[in-house]
Amino acid sequence: MTKVLTKQIKRDQLLEQGLSLIIEQGYHGTGLKEILEKVKIPKGSFYHYFENKEQFGAAVIEFYIAPFIKQLDENFQNPEFDAYTALFSYYQDAILEFEEKKYKGGCLLGNLMGEIGETSEVCRVALKNAVDDYRSIHEQVLEQAQQEGSVRTDLTARAMADLLISTWQGAILRMKVEKSVRPLQEYSQLLLQDYIKS
Amino acid sequence: MTKVLTKQIKRDQLLEQGLSLIIEQGYHGTGLKEILEKVKIPKGSFYHYFENKEQFGAAVIEFYIAPFIKQLDENFQNPEFDAYTALFSYYQDAILEFEEKKYKGGCLLGNLMGEIGETSEVCRVALKNAVDDYRSIHEQVLEQAQQEGSVRTDLTARAMADLLISTWQGAILRMKVEKSVRPLQEYSQLLLQDYIKS
Repeated sequence: MTKVLTKQIKRDQLLEQGLSLIIEQGYHGTGLKEILEKVKIPKGSFYHYFENKEQFGAAVIEFYIAPFIKQLDENFQNPEFDAYTALFSYYQDAILEFEEKKYKGGCLLGNLMGEIGETSEVCRVALKNAVDDYRSIHEQVLEQAQQEGSVRTDLTARAMADLLISTWQGAILRMKVEKSVRPLQEYSQLLLQDYIKS
Repeated sequence: MTKVLTKQIKRDQLLEQGLSLIIEQGYHGTGLKEILEKVKIPKGSFYHYFENKEQFGAAVIEFYIAPFIKQLDENFQNPEFDAYTALFSYYQDAILEFEEKKYKGGCLLGNLMGEIGETSEVCRVALKNAVDDYRSIHEQVLEQAQQEGSVRTDLTARAMADLLISTWQGAILRMKVEKSVRPLQEYSQLLLQDYIKS
């Protein structure tokens, strides 16, 4: 294996382990030491991979959001789904997954916007970019759904995308403290199946 | 001044200082030492006031939500306002306040649900109770507004209360990273002025 490849693999392991710890324990609640021990990397060599904890946090945020965007985009590209169904299925799958995981973790973006959105400028920018990208794919799907006649056209796709994302974030926080997917189901019933439908 | 009163004042100072630091820096990002220094209380005597940091966190959560519930209730009791106007004004005031504070702090409940909703059972229960109380006052106002004919009656007051709170929480998180009240205004336009109105 080349050195470059080995480095890439180790870097991904750090991100994966960092993500799974930070999403449950928070940014400040997770020490680099804990992450490094799990990945079996000596403390000093962390800095071969990332400049500092903040840069690592920003990389974890990017690493986290990418598969969600990919999943929604795959549903969107799926010829068996119209755009509304692509969006609806995406959220039904997410609700099922949270139920299976016993409401663990929630959403890294929501957790970190609350915890460090104000104290780490590097992470704030990474969070904003991640939310913007997530909004953008929602917007595309909603625009297509408007063209297909399944979503109302008196609101912009962008405003609806923003609303869906804000409510979903808030509902996930509620899920965590209520230990129930009820807030997510309510999001689905009131917003996806009622408010945005044409 | 009696000893009991002095103790009460110091306790309130700890809560106030704790709140202002935790809401900006997070629970784990704020050390007890920092709070005690600001209030000029020697480290050892913290435990005269609170059993441990978690119990302190739970007390900060209660201390935080009480004035918001009081404010909404005062609007609701105000004979100049009908119930819908009481609710609408409450949120308009909150948006203005966030604008004046330059989007600082956000909502303690949202921040802590994300950060420690999963790792501290004591705080999770305090957060759930605070959100339940906040939901309950919303529900009362919405029920009254339904009776007055200004809010739709095909959804329960409770479901609308839940939706409003979830979306508001999510929108506040977005506000923090976007450094803009746009997500809060969108909440107001789409949900308060459109979706829930009859």
